[in-house]
Amino acid sequence: MGRVVVDVMPKPEILDPQGKAVAGALPRLGFAQFSSVRQGKRFELEVDGPVTDEVLAAARAAGEQVLSNPVIEDVVAVYEDTDAEVAAR
Amino acid sequence: MGRVVVDVMPKPEILDPQGKAVAGALPRLGFAQFSSVRQGKRFELEVDGPVTDEVLAAARAAGEQVLSNPVIEDVVAVYEDTDAEVAAR
Repeated sequence: MGRVVVDVMPKPEILDPQGKAVAGALPRLGFAQFSSVRQGKRFELEVDGPVTDEVLAAARAAGEQVLSNPVIEDVVAVYEDTDAEVAAR
Repeated sequence: MGRVVVDVMPKPEILDPQGKAVAGALPRLGFAQFSSVRQGKRFELEVDGPVTDEVLAAARAAGEQVLSNPVIEDVVAVYEDTDAEVAAR
């Protein structure tokens, strides 16, 4: 069983009200280190077999065609989720 | 200028209707490789200086206290975003 992560973010020029709201709240809650925040989506796609190059290419295509709106969003990362936390879940 | 990514996912036992809806649509759109899909959030937090261990610790704390609902969500990854796409944006 393999897992692929597809990360989608708003295009840089697109207004991100959620990110702005979070950025505004963080200093009040004691987190003054961060100058800005942007919020996007993280998808975890599971496959029954191993994560091959074909699976990664299909995940990127699914990201671009189904999981994001290409007018306002970019697929910024597609990678196999191999970290230990996968095993723990 | 540095950037930290904080990834938040629904806890495994939490129903994920959005993920189920996407998983149902993918085969109809030609993507039959994926057995399940889960959807979470990706936050990009920018800092003016370098990403130090303290910054990463603050980002994880912000993730757990502000960016996620600990009852139904887990912070699954906190890392410095160093890939080339950062430079390109």
